[in-house]
Amino acid sequence: MTAAADRAKRGFASDNAATVHPEVMAAIAEANVGHTYGYGHDRLTEALAERFREHFGEATRAYPVWGGTAANVLCLRATCRPWEGVICTDTAHLNVDECGAPEAIAGVKLLAVEAEEGKLAPAAAERMISRVGDEHAVQARVVTISQATELGTVYGIEEVRALAELAHGHGLLLHVDGARLANAAAALGTKLREVTTAVGVDMLSFGGTKNGLLGAEAVVFLTPGLGEGFEYLRKQSLQLASKMRFLSAQLDALLTDDLWLRSAAQANAMAARLAERVGSLPEVTIARPVQANAVFARLPRQTITELQQQYDFHVWDEATDEVRWMCAWDTTEKDVDEFANALERALADSAA
Amino acid sequence: MTAAADRAKRGFASDNAATVHPEVMAAIAEANVGHTYGYGHDRLTEALAERFREHFGEATRAYPVWGGTAANVLCLRATCRPWEGVICTDTAHLNVDECGAPEAIAGVKLLAVEAEEGKLAPAAAERMISRVGDEHAVQARVVTISQATELGTVYGIEEVRALAELAHGHGLLLHVDGARLANAAAALGTKLREVTTAVGVDMLSFGGTKNGLLGAEAVVFLTPGLGEGFEYLRKQSLQLASKMRFLSAQLDALLTDDLWLRSAAQANAMAARLAERVGSLPEVTIARPVQANAVFARLPRQTITELQQQYDFHVWDEATDEVRWMCAWDTTEKDVDEFANALERALADSAA
Amino acid sequence: MTAAADRAKRGFASDNAATVHPEVMAAIAEANVGHTYGYGHDRLTEALAERFREHFGEATRAYPVWGGTAANVLCLRATCRPWEGVICTDTAHLNVDECGAPEAIAGVKLLAVEAEEGKLAPAAAERMISRVGDEHAVQARVVTISQATELGTVYGIEEVRALAELAHGHGLLLHVDGARLANAAAALGTKLREVTTAVGVDMLSFGGTKNGLLGAEAVVFLTPGLGEGFEYLRKQSLQLASKMRFLSAQLDALLTDDLWLRSAAQANAMAARLAERVGSLPEVTIARPVQANAVFARLPRQTITELQQQYDFHVWDEATDEVRWMCAWDTTEKDVDEFANALERALADSAA
Amino acid sequence: MTAAADRAKRGFASDNAATVHPEVMAAIAEANVGHTYGYGHDRLTEALAERFREHFGEATRAYPVWGGTAANVLCLRATCRPWEGVICTDTAHLNVDECGAPEAIAGVKLLAVEAEEGKLAPAAAERMISRVGDEHAVQARVVTISQATELGTVYGIEEVRALAELAHGHGLLLHVDGARLANAAAALGTKLREVTTAVGVDMLSFGGTKNGLLGAEAVVFLTPGLGEGFEYLRKQSLQLASKMRFLSAQLDALLTDDLWLRSAAQANAMAARLAERVGSLPEVTIARPVQANAVFARLPRQTITELQQQYDFHVWDEATDEVRWMCAWDTTEKDVDEFANALERALADSAA
Repeated sequence: MTAAADRAKRGFASDNAATVHPEVMAAIAEANVGHTYGYGHDRLTEALAERFREHFGEATRAYPVWGGTAANVLCLRATCRPWEGVICTDTAHLNVDECGAPEAIAGVKLLAVEAEEGKLAPAAAERMISRVGDEHAVQARVVTISQATELGTVYGIEEVRALAELAHGHGLLLHVDGARLANAAAALGTKLREVTTAVGVDMLSFGGTKNGLLGAEAVVFLTPGLGEGFEYLRKQSLQLASKMRFLSAQLDALLTDDLWLRSAAQANAMAARLAERVGSLPEVTIARPVQANAVFARLPRQTITELQQQYDFHVWDEATDEVRWMCAWDTTEKDVDEFANALERALADSAA
Repeated sequence: MTAAADRAKRGFASDNAATVHPEVMAAIAEANVGHTYGYGHDRLTEALAERFREHFGEATRAYPVWGGTAANVLCLRATCRPWEGVICTDTAHLNVDECGAPEAIAGVKLLAVEAEEGKLAPAAAERMISRVGDEHAVQARVVTISQATELGTVYGIEEVRALAELAHGHGLLLHVDGARLANAAAALGTKLREVTTAVGVDMLSFGGTKNGLLGAEAVVFLTPGLGEGFEYLRKQSLQLASKMRFLSAQLDALLTDDLWLRSAAQANAMAARLAERVGSLPEVTIARPVQANAVFARLPRQTITELQQQYDFHVWDEATDEVRWMCAWDTTEKDVDEFANALERALADSAA
Repeated sequence: MTAAADRAKRGFASDNAATVHPEVMAAIAEANVGHTYGYGHDRLTEALAERFREHFGEATRAYPVWGGTAANVLCLRATCRPWEGVICTDTAHLNVDECGAPEAIAGVKLLAVEAEEGKLAPAAAERMISRVGDEHAVQARVVTISQATELGTVYGIEEVRALAELAHGHGLLLHVDGARLANAAAALGTKLREVTTAVGVDMLSFGGTKNGLLGAEAVVFLTPGLGEGFEYLRKQSLQLASKMRFLSAQLDALLTDDLWLRSAAQANAMAARLAERVGSLPEVTIARPVQANAVFARLPRQTITELQQQYDFHVWDEATDEVRWMCAWDTTEKDVDEFANALERALADSAA
Repeated sequence: MTAAADRAKRGFASDNAATVHPEVMAAIAEANVGHTYGYGHDRLTEALAERFREHFGEATRAYPVWGGTAANVLCLRATCRPWEGVICTDTAHLNVDECGAPEAIAGVKLLAVEAEEGKLAPAAAERMISRVGDEHAVQARVVTISQATELGTVYGIEEVRALAELAHGHGLLLHVDGARLANAAAALGTKLREVTTAVGVDMLSFGGTKNGLLGAEAVVFLTPGLGEGFEYLRKQSLQLASKMRFLSAQLDALLTDDLWLRSAAQANAMAARLAERVGSLPEVTIARPVQANAVFARLPRQTITELQQQYDFHVWDEATDEVRWMCAWDTTEKDVDEFANALERALADSAA
């Protein structure tokens, strides 16, 4: 493949394989004027704090960080004492895709339970709140869910509320890994606050990179009193950006003029379109509910192989020939249609 | 001050208070086309690896990370076993400006010795290599120096070589915190390799952010065999960028057409100009040798206070009224001259 | 209850609720003469090293530590790099009874799979050796089993060998939590070496406290090359005893004249006797195979409550009214018979 | 040397090279009757709690642990958040003899200042309480002193009070590494409480092993409100003894009938006797004030070598031929006199 072809390549590997939104690029360029104090002591970071309060409520304290794994791990490090643990699903990003960072960096034990379509069931979570006061056992402190989930599903508002009530009833906190919170809110048709602060979420990893930023996320404390000393913890945990204004500019752009929603809604719509286009093909099975920007499907191994020569995407489960197709803010109808066509051709080839 | 005035503000607070270089912005924009695998599995990151080898030698393995503290801590985490320690100066960034990250995240003990003009003296370093084989004592494993130092001084090539030989003679490694390596090489008139690989440096935190990048540094292993499993460590230590191409693009731009040198040389030249302009003023004392892009000076408290109303900069030592003025790639002769004039006026005011 | 009655109390709460064996007390007294260097630089500790080699083979390196949790955690800390993980059962002591020490102190992630009667099935273990080379995933490094298990079952020699072969086939190590290794070897009728070194076990937490010692365990490396720098790690991990001679004396006594076997065989025999005595009682169900020194049984809640007024023992599972009765080296036939009689009376009472 | 001779060997290597006091051995034997719950849920441990309250005041909460390094590290781990640091002397056991455990296990940074005769000067300590509120700098949280010090000196009551007031004035805590607290109190002629609780000490590593125990220390919180959740922390930090009754019995014996005082006073008296006997010898210089149970002296290298063939003791500083002679509870006048005679002979030999 030529470099030019490579540069124009389209794919469904991940929403972080996508580009940076032009409005975000413009915000970065706009921020790139004059000298300003580093480490967040700048006008843009100050403005961002207010922006987060508009979207999540007056008590919100948001701290920009570079990465999503970092946002998750810092939320836990900020709220768990060394003997406290975190209830999550077995499919949670924290549990399977962070190379042990929660254990090694936050020092917490994850108390994983089997997910149902990527979601945490309240009853399963509650069973992990046990042996309270027993010094031999890790004490559950946080319940964490991913919204949208790693399997492309979305918790309904009442589902989140029920988990928050469960957590609070036992003196625990509810954390949301919101790497794709925008996709969830777009899917539910709610404001960001309605699916978080309003239903009892205590803290949040707010995702930006998967939704069109160059690289910025935020640790967001919603419940008053959480996160004391977090400034120190962010610095020590290698997440204090010196040229902070450029992270703040990105996040501010995302929270301006509903860019978060426009981008997430487009990604979701493209996933829906893709599922619709390919779901009825004879040898293709849509494997999970398509509620956000992911499509999971099972199809013949040979077809997968052929299709991957043209398009980047991941095989999710080798054992069942299940693949994952992610749509992003910059996925177009043309992208989807060409991909669906290519899939049809590949199926025809293998049938031949 | 109006927002417009604020945006145009010039100062000497830090080289990370500066802007992003236009060539870097262009490289980011250039990278922002098409879909590509995240986490470094992209063409730009591949190209960057080759670029680092050109500058530092064939055995070089470079890993982009987000921040300078991260680069330092990861170098140590990658090479020290839990009972091993790191010899540094008492003024090292690692020792005083990383909020305990080396201890908390890398789990290493720093063995700090008194600096001489910011530099580590070989004899002082050697005294810390003691109690070898004594299970009650941390075993020295790494010697680390900052080049240029936090006090604006620069190790000569032979000074670095002597420290490398000392380290290697005892079975230790030499690490360079190169947040300002470009400034040092520019000051010495050497290539990057000549002041690192060629004189025995084993690993390097290669700085970019302070030299005109938006936010990118690199962990660089120069000696073959170091850093086994570093991919896992970078991920676990919260420093694996999903949209890696944008870090790689920045670093690639810095290493292209000598941008690193052009930018650092400008910063150094402006520091020299500033020192020359103000060094002879009656109540101003240049406090330390001006060898890179920092000027340390002592001046009357009242003058400091007045000057800070117009310009951002830091008081380095309250006890001695010593201030630090940093120049950056975007500091201009006009900036320096206007600042020197303002200083003259402030001195005159306080004399009046 | 009077203090005197309390002092004479007998129970089935745990093998660590038992007394210290007279031969061990004698060894401690014997060691308590003259001055000697601390921290293991004494004649008794030297002799102990040889004793371990006799029992486990010439390559054995044994390090006394104070506690069983410490022995387990140090084995892992000594062999896992930060991104490596440990495959265990969900019922493993490491997973549920060490208050997160493996995660917090060794920094490892446990990869737990569902146990079968307390044992790790090779197929289940093998499924956890996945995503090799994927930087986002913890890399399995150690397989750990408890022998005897926390549920009173014992791996046969061939079962251990199969797990060792599985581990080695994937480049992993096999660790045995041998807090009750003596009970397992006694049950199998083997020498200690036959169920460890001879079948491929790489390292071992060798238990003493549950088998009649006052307080001493050992980290034992069986495979050459493991545990480099362990002296430092033991000190740093808070497990280097200053008056080491008294730990060494205990362990030496245990390994002398087959005290380990005599004590473990007695405990096992008493468990068998207890199971036989109560297994046929109408409302008592022996819940798991009785292969070592534990009896798990289900009985009426009211009976449990009544019996606990006279005897210490733990309810294992509140949901199923399952209790655990542990026998120790000092459990006598009289203890068992009186307890069985008391149980019969309690059953009769509740039936009345 | 024959084994018999070895067993009867006397020396001055350390107070942990000494034997276990007969009253302690008797207490262990006394505890060795009947079955009792492990992990401190026993009558002896309960009684010990009351014993500590008698000696240190009503608010005292004492937790037996195995080792002195553990006691120190756990005090810090219990009171410092990840970004907090600990002010100590450069000669502190925590700083130089715990193989980096404070950094690696408690995750704290030590802020070491130069000691004066082993003691921490308030002015030096205060200089380390700086950059309060600066997220780049570790925030001082604890001031720690050793009492008696590692150099055999003793803080006067008013010196401890001054350090406590300094610490409290800045919102910090005062910790005492009391591995030899008994020696200090004996030297000062005070009760344990008078030199700790009464003068503002907040928490304490209470030493036993160096004062005639087999192996037991305690983490002691004196100020109400400290150490929340410490039960979990002790377990997780590998310091929860299963057969706790034997640790409690030892500590109880030490605190009964002033055994702590009788033993410490004997050790101190023997050090004084030794200093007096050898201090006037022509080539021997007593190097530091002899205030507790240590004698530091400088003498000819040849004499050191000859004397070490008969007696165990440590060279403290190779550069200055300074040795350390520790006396213990079981050091006798005969021991001292024979040693002094041997020293005289060795001096005479080398003069010949």
